[in-house]
Amino acid sequence: MTEKIDKIRSGDIRTASRLIRNLEDGVLAARTEMKQLFTYTGKAHVVGITGSPGAGKSTLIDGLVEYFRKAGETVGVLAIDPTSPFTGGAILGDRIRMQRHAEDRDVFVRSLATRGALGGLAKATGDAIHVMDAMGKDIILVETVGTGQQEVDIINHSHTVIVVLIPGMGDEIQAIKAGIMEIADIFVVNKADRDGASKLRRELSVLLDMAPPNSFAGGWRPPIVMVENAFDPECFCKGMVDLTTAVAAHYKHMANHDLLGSRMRRKATVELREAIRTCVLEPILDRLICGGDMDAMIERMLKKEVDPYTLAEQIAGACLKEV
Amino acid sequence: MTEKIDKIRSGDIRTASRLIRNLEDGVLAARTEMKQLFTYTGKAHVVGITGSPGAGKSTLIDGLVEYFRKAGETVGVLAIDPTSPFTGGAILGDRIRMQRHAEDRDVFVRSLATRGALGGLAKATGDAIHVMDAMGKDIILVETVGTGQQEVDIINHSHTVIVVLIPGMGDEIQAIKAGIMEIADIFVVNKADRDGASKLRRELSVLLDMAPPNSFAGGWRPPIVMVENAFDPECFCKGMVDLTTAVAAHYKHMANHDLLGSRMRRKATVELREAIRTCVLEPILDRLICGGDMDAMIERMLKKEVDPYTLAEQIAGACLKEV
Repeated sequence: MTEKIDKIRSGDIRTASRLIRNLEDGVLAARTEMKQLFTYTGKAHVVGITGSPGAGKSTLIDGLVEYFRKAGETVGVLAIDPTSPFTGGAILGDRIRMQRHAEDRDVFVRSLATRGALGGLAKATGDAIHVMDAMGKDIILVETVGTGQQEVDIINHSHTVIVVLIPGMGDEIQAIKAGIMEIADIFVVNKADRDGASKLRRELSVLLDMAPPNSFAGGWRPPIVMVENAFDPECFCKGMVDLTTAVAAHYKHMANHDLLGSRMRRKATVELREAIRTCVLEPILDRLICGGDMDAMIERMLKKEVDPYTLAEQIAGACLKEV
Repeated sequence: MTEKIDKIRSGDIRTASRLIRNLEDGVLAARTEMKQLFTYTGKAHVVGITGSPGAGKSTLIDGLVEYFRKAGETVGVLAIDPTSPFTGGAILGDRIRMQRHAEDRDVFVRSLATRGALGGLAKATGDAIHVMDAMGKDIILVETVGTGQQEVDIINHSHTVIVVLIPGMGDEIQAIKAGIMEIADIFVVNKADRDGASKLRRELSVLLDMAPPNSFAGGWRPPIVMVENAFDPECFCKGMVDLTTAVAAHYKHMANHDLLGSRMRRKATVELREAIRTCVLEPILDRLICGGDMDAMIERMLKKEVDPYTLAEQIAGACLKEV
């Protein structure tokens, strides 16, 4: 056990990969390893990157990895792929992604698949970030596809959130609708050579102007960074330099304005809640499923003999101690 | 109480709205009403509509409402708006949406806001669908923005899933990445007058050709419907006629191939799991939060004195009966 922990701390990719897979699969021994790793976490700068499919997030991350590596930092990349609820595996995932960094042992790339409907993704995300953190990665880039619940998860686990937009993806109301204005620490207008890029920048700027006075924590107004060509291994374009500067500046801002503590607290709260779900709810569900009680209950619901809340209250009565 | 139930069953909008709001807010009395309504549910055809922001889902739903109303059916619309985790309210929501149907008492439109990070949305979605179902709505259209976890939720609650795509939103790999191939019962290529629409249709068709033999339940191959102008109150364009025909055909197919039962079972399973979460996990979290224990635990985690799994196991030990 201690050997495994040491291996992970020294950045061993095989051991770390196996632990993350076991965490995804809910293997109980993985939980013991996580307990021991916990002491060694909390050092990495976690950067969430979000935006619609087609916004060019993967290319942007590719560029960021290249940049941070040249600056001497070690990097973890966690890609959260929405996936088929039927197959239970990431559809594309690591195989076609990030081939270029495959030889660099200071870059560690993982995909997580969403499995089932009970919020398992959020748990696996937090755990996988902890593993990369314990591996000693300086920067951990977490990519989500889509909007909604996943965005809530990503901000809960990140210190800095980058929202990626591109021109011509529908009007600015879509951006507000997706609720991304409030979660962004940095905006990227990607593919900024396209028509409509400066219009999009102006619209974003107007929306930021309209935000209520206390919206910006410690006075941090999210910068809008224009990126034309995110990945260009030879010369770094102005946009990518601006972006990495903004990422570093945001971390410094948080540290100087006592904001890091509140983000850490939010992160810890989510982790504790997820752990409680894992340790309290899952054993109950497992027991119901294995004993066949779950199936019997569902049949009774389908016959309209009983409603789900009545069943759930009976289960609570049977499982919970009186207080 | 019985009076309220009767009012909801007769389609009373105020009573139904208040119940849904109370369900979202976790009001305990609302659960009792849900128990009584449960007997009157299970008749509606629930149609999920999903796709990226900017794909024109709202306009498409607007057109569907108009069409189904002209065909004499009553309609419920449930819009799931991702929203700011900070404000906790729907950002745009019902106010600017569906103004045209405001006078029609056989159309009932609600938005749900995503609140917090613990899967509350899925629960509220199921409950709100039940309320509309008990109101006697023939068709319930459920719209989600984005991809990922919400899509998993929507298929768990729907009989038929429509995936809306538009040309020029990135290549077809994005569609696979978003994991939507497997969840679609019907594809809509929206804004089909745009460049690239027939290319997108061909790509989808190729992907469907490549699907493994048993992918299509009961032999239902998802049709690809081209829609140019989803909302046109005077004349219904060919695309919308094709779409509503496909929706009805899919329901008939499920009924004829004994597939309705398995979807109903999946729906019931999710509802029961959500109810167990509500009745088992939430009281434990409430107690920890009210007593200040949660805060104390988080402080200990931040000092790295203890890891979340150890805390969660202690909580499980304190709350769960021995089995």
